[in-house]
Amino acid sequence: MDTPANTVTAAIVVIGDEILSGRTQDTNSGDIARALGAVGIDVTEIRVVSDEEPAIVEAVNALRAQNSYVFTCGGIGPTHDDKTADAIAAAFGVGIDFDERAIAMMRERFPNPADLNEGRMRMTRIPFGAELIANSVSKAPGFHIGNVFVMAGVPSIMRAMLAEVVPLLRSGVPTSSESLRADIKEGDLAMPLAALQKQHPSVSIGSYPFNDGDRYGSNLVLRSRDTHALADAMAAVEAMLKTLT
Amino acid sequence: MDTPANTVTAAIVVIGDEILSGRTQDTNSGDIARALGAVGIDVTEIRVVSDEEPAIVEAVNALRAQNSYVFTCGGIGPTHDDKTADAIAAAFGVGIDFDERAIAMMRERFPNPADLNEGRMRMTRIPFGAELIANSVSKAPGFHIGNVFVMAGVPSIMRAMLAEVVPLLRSGVPTSSESLRADIKEGDLAMPLAALQKQHPSVSIGSYPFNDGDRYGSNLVLRSRDTHALADAMAAVEAMLKTLT
Repeated sequence: MDTPANTVTAAIVVIGDEILSGRTQDTNSGDIARALGAVGIDVTEIRVVSDEEPAIVEAVNALRAQNSYVFTCGGIGPTHDDKTADAIAAAFGVGIDFDERAIAMMRERFPNPADLNEGRMRMTRIPFGAELIANSVSKAPGFHIGNVFVMAGVPSIMRAMLAEVVPLLRSGVPTSSESLRADIKEGDLAMPLAALQKQHPSVSIGSYPFNDGDRYGSNLVLRSRDTHALADAMAAVEAMLKTLT
Repeated sequence: MDTPANTVTAAIVVIGDEILSGRTQDTNSGDIARALGAVGIDVTEIRVVSDEEPAIVEAVNALRAQNSYVFTCGGIGPTHDDKTADAIAAAFGVGIDFDERAIAMMRERFPNPADLNEGRMRMTRIPFGAELIANSVSKAPGFHIGNVFVMAGVPSIMRAMLAEVVPLLRSGVPTSSESLRADIKEGDLAMPLAALQKQHPSVSIGSYPFNDGDRYGSNLVLRSRDTHALADAMAAVEAMLKTLT
């Protein structure tokens, strides 16, 4: 598929041992990818890393150099195993300290000073130079620095932060897609499909096998930023499938 | 948590634009992580990359240098968008060609030569020096070369290949885990929990917030390869929680 020079790209870093161990299923990366896709931003890579600072620093620094944006989720809570804010400060080589803007947000939720304890105060530590991301669910903010957006791991809070963030982004031309389900095995359509891919270079033609019990078939997904080219390719695929059935 | 020198580690590379776009939810990485965890192999990183050869090569080469094993899933089907076998050959700097062992496996499923067409024959292209991984579901094999295991993306086929692969691996000491649900907000247990983490360095204590409607609480997960240390830490956490309620 064409990737013009002005393509806007993003990578996602999911932080958490619970995802790596397979105990918790990550759903945040899919939510982020769909929200970005809707404004024409292509996700090029997703990395799931451990709660350890070196792993976070390495992933964020590699990916922020290669993409328009990086989105992280996880590791900004009050407990000792939340190390993302320190890791981001280390990745950018800046200091980190309690942030008055973040403290003010937390005071809205915890007006009694006794409730704004040492653990919750950890959530107001923000790398120098970062802007905050509001959290309409539970107040403790995310932040962004450079091209990196740091969000919570709890899905409802991540989604609230994502809604704040998306309007700040440079958007691209959204990719349109069309899909169809063919009751034809991939092995029987692979060669004609490859020929169509060559004839329609501005359209990405993907094939994903399925099986329902004994039946095998192919889900075909066509994607392009050019809607006319997409329609032409879709018509060609439909005509090809008719020759096979 | 202790990571002794003889720790066995793995990374997972999930290959496919459909995961990156958020249209398809990856479940293979969780299945692989749980199967490896059961034999004491720690997953250190999961990367989701596009169907493009350079992206696959970069991820596989970075991760195979850092881990005991790398597992890939996706991109070994018959269609033009399946590029994993070529990418693995490129990553290892070896050639790739039709493999007699793989052709024999495919002939079991497609005894009629007309059915073993050009598309299906693509699935018998195996990098030089690789060993095959049997596929009890649909015959087209995976393969392993060096410390990299290449499996299908269709979950039922991936699981069948994984069952073939796990007995081949050097296993580690499994990590035991205990979890408990505390109806206490993370902010209220963060500091005592951090103190317990310091006192129990051979146990990894993780805290994961939850909210059910208006109720917030914390899922605590304790993990260790030392079952006695785990029991001690669990008792200490339970005693600490009693002081808070």
